[in-house]
Amino acid sequence: MLLPRSPISAFASRRSALQARLDGPALFAAGQPRARNYRNNHHRFRASSHFLYFLGAAIPGAALLFARGTAQLFASAPEADDALWHGPQPTFAELREAHQLDAVRPLDELPGALRDAGGSAASVATLPTEDAASAEWLSSLLGRTIRPGTGHTIAEGTPDHALALAVIALRLRHDAAAIAQLRAGAEASSSAHLAGMRATRGARFEWEVAAAMTGELRRHNLDDAYSPIVTVRGEVLHNPTHDNPLTAGDLLLADVGGETPEGWAADITRVWPVSGRFSPTQRAIYDAVLAAQEAAIARVKKGTRYRAVHETAGRTLVAALKDLGIFKGDVDGLYERGAAAIFFPHGVGHLLGLDVHDLEDLGDRAAYGPGRVRSTRFGDCYLRLDLDLEPGMAVTIEPGFYQVPAILADATLTGAIGADLDRDVLQRFADVRGIRIEDDVLCTEGEPEVLSRAAPKTTAAVEAAMAQAADQ
Amino acid sequence: MLLPRSPISAFASRRSALQARLDGPALFAAGQPRARNYRNNHHRFRASSHFLYFLGAAIPGAALLFARGTAQLFASAPEADDALWHGPQPTFAELREAHQLDAVRPLDELPGALRDAGGSAASVATLPTEDAASAEWLSSLLGRTIRPGTGHTIAEGTPDHALALAVIALRLRHDAAAIAQLRAGAEASSSAHLAGMRATRGARFEWEVAAAMTGELRRHNLDDAYSPIVTVRGEVLHNPTHDNPLTAGDLLLADVGGETPEGWAADITRVWPVSGRFSPTQRAIYDAVLAAQEAAIARVKKGTRYRAVHETAGRTLVAALKDLGIFKGDVDGLYERGAAAIFFPHGVGHLLGLDVHDLEDLGDRAAYGPGRVRSTRFGDCYLRLDLDLEPGMAVTIEPGFYQVPAILADATLTGAIGADLDRDVLQRFADVRGIRIEDDVLCTEGEPEVLSRAAPKTTAAVEAAMAQAADQ
Repeated sequence: MLLPRSPISAFASRRSALQARLDGPALFAAGQPRARNYRNNHHRFRASSHFLYFLGAAIPGAALLFARGTAQLFASAPEADDALWHGPQPTFAELREAHQLDAVRPLDELPGALRDAGGSAASVATLPTEDAASAEWLSSLLGRTIRPGTGHTIAEGTPDHALALAVIALRLRHDAAAIAQLRAGAEASSSAHLAGMRATRGARFEWEVAAAMTGELRRHNLDDAYSPIVTVRGEVLHNPTHDNPLTAGDLLLADVGGETPEGWAADITRVWPVSGRFSPTQRAIYDAVLAAQEAAIARVKKGTRYRAVHETAGRTLVAALKDLGIFKGDVDGLYERGAAAIFFPHGVGHLLGLDVHDLEDLGDRAAYGPGRVRSTRFGDCYLRLDLDLEPGMAVTIEPGFYQVPAILADATLTGAIGADLDRDVLQRFADVRGIRIEDDVLCTEGEPEVLSRAAPKTTAAVEAAMAQAADQ
Repeated sequence: MLLPRSPISAFASRRSALQARLDGPALFAAGQPRARNYRNNHHRFRASSHFLYFLGAAIPGAALLFARGTAQLFASAPEADDALWHGPQPTFAELREAHQLDAVRPLDELPGALRDAGGSAASVATLPTEDAASAEWLSSLLGRTIRPGTGHTIAEGTPDHALALAVIALRLRHDAAAIAQLRAGAEASSSAHLAGMRATRGARFEWEVAAAMTGELRRHNLDDAYSPIVTVRGEVLHNPTHDNPLTAGDLLLADVGGETPEGWAADITRVWPVSGRFSPTQRAIYDAVLAAQEAAIARVKKGTRYRAVHETAGRTLVAALKDLGIFKGDVDGLYERGAAAIFFPHGVGHLLGLDVHDLEDLGDRAAYGPGRVRSTRFGDCYLRLDLDLEPGMAVTIEPGFYQVPAILADATLTGAIGADLDRDVLQRFADVRGIRIEDDVLCTEGEPEVLSRAAPKTTAAVEAAMAQAADQ
């Protein structure tokens, strides 16, 4: 499978759509490469998502200026040494033509262009970058302080706020080019999960499975969209290391997704048994989480409030755990008293797009919308999204079940359930430490489209994929 | 192969050795994780090399204080939420025991400890971090401005300068634990090159070969020591993308090395034919570069000045190219007039250790030593190292041959050779765009130890490795 390339016209359309929403000029910085440990050793450059959205190319240190109905790119002029170290570079004329821009100009003309655009540079709107060097550069260009990573604190009523709202309005609903990117990224990332399943028997450490998955992502020209989680300690929700040995009774949780060269993310979690066969208790809990996930996916429809999707997952999980004898009593009552969050303490998902948590740099402004605020209730307070779903929005659906000792031992979190949590029954499920099942789902005019459907998901499909590998 | 773990005593010895060289207190910051595009999406955390050298563990935001004969670690105290999201964390007492430190204390006690250590915090020596957040933090702790990434500009006569010299004196000659790390990293990285060779036939794009190599690094639990170069455009020296299609007549250049979990780097380059067979012209130039590389490796001995190793590579290359008819005339005369740099415009190598360009954060102070400065001559000016070699130093040896249009067309670079460069003969070698052969070499009391010797290197060995894959 070769990844699709977005047509240049898609970016031109996005730029026009932004201009139609803007009253004044706006500047987007691409960002600067980040050095790892000394100046000449860089992480691969990944441009700011806003910049990528409107240009589709990652040009270090560049900036895109929208002003007076034009879109101009400002970039470093090729230096004499560049041909020596970096090979032939496109001319500005070639860049202009390739990206259908109004102009491509050297960076040193940007201060003048800002004055022409806005009366004063300070009136040009921008969005803060994550990297400190670019934030400092924007500050000096615009004559006001822009602190890195502060897109979530932009003050209302400012030009920056208006720009943030305009960008959010565009980026929330994906266009055809974006959907093609998300589909391809999810499909290739699904292959990585299949590769992980196939590499598990015979592997001795988590890192060997992670290696197979990373290798498969790269084989499709995908970078990591985020640091992969591949662990037998699935109950540790943020677990960036892959150092544990694999033992036959373990479940392995893999939360791994790639990013296309244009920057679009996938975010998929699967869980499989190291031995190739789920134990009866693992199968039972897995099916409980799967039921919750399928019920939640079915609700990804036009007009559904995302919090309701979250609640569906929680109630379905509580009902399934009640069927297993872990909870006792009335499902609705259990849910109201916080039963779901004891085992599923995070939100059911988030926006997906150019970022894994799409638009999270702009804070809850994007994913909650006007007038909606986060719940203060344990579990629900971590819900990252609460919009009414619309066609073109992509979200993850990722309920889980985790036995987190710090939660199970905390009476402030479990007290309201009391004896309705049957800890003797729970004990029988000790071989389930953490399960999460996560798909990427596109809201459409009709049924939800599961972008990551190629990743084996039922216990039967997972076991079949693993058995197939063993036969090879 | 499982990677070795350095014994805790190795770090304790390094700390003692530093203390013996210090007159006053010193503080090393581990550094902060770098966010990719929004706050919650981090690159894997890689601590500062100086911190890793003395502790062997990457603890985000931590600092190591040497004062009054003690070594104390300051780290974030585990927070209530940590057990929930990050799993059980070691206590400070456990950390102290595990690392044989004098104390492990919460970060908020660091300002007081700095006052106790130095009379005034400003008199505590430190080395600048690459990340801006940590540099800012150090500035506020020590009450003076420490700019990120400025280790190469530390002023002489300051406590920071004395600290830099002490650290350089230790880190230049690797101890047994470091050598074990470098050996293991080079061996596993050699496997990655073998995997790349085996994955090439059947691959259609550079990224597929890069994928096989990255996957093999990860299978050994190695991260990338630097952004891998895998390209059919070997003449573009800095080429971070892997987007070109592979065609049968191409040579593929792969400059790929891993980093062990303790932070030690490998740095290996091999070149192989996409078809599995070198053409006669490719073979001839490859053997010329290999002759230069082998001659240079043979000179990695106690007491040899590294610039002489560089010169040996250049002269040997010129002689071999003369044998091919590309140059005419006297080898020494050609070399003196700059013939080598026309095709081999970079230095023959650099220090290798916890960084790929080891100690480069401290500038030429480390790799040139007192009284030695860079040549101003084209080619030689890029030589990163010019010490007299000593047992325990690890270096790369990496001559190359590149047909860089920007060089070949530049009379200021080729004029001194004039007609002694036979461009008609050169034309016959048009299917050789770029070759580099790079090994990691340890200087010992006797013969040089080639740490990366497991990566196939002769044309016969490369072709055999590729044929083996085709048979599978």
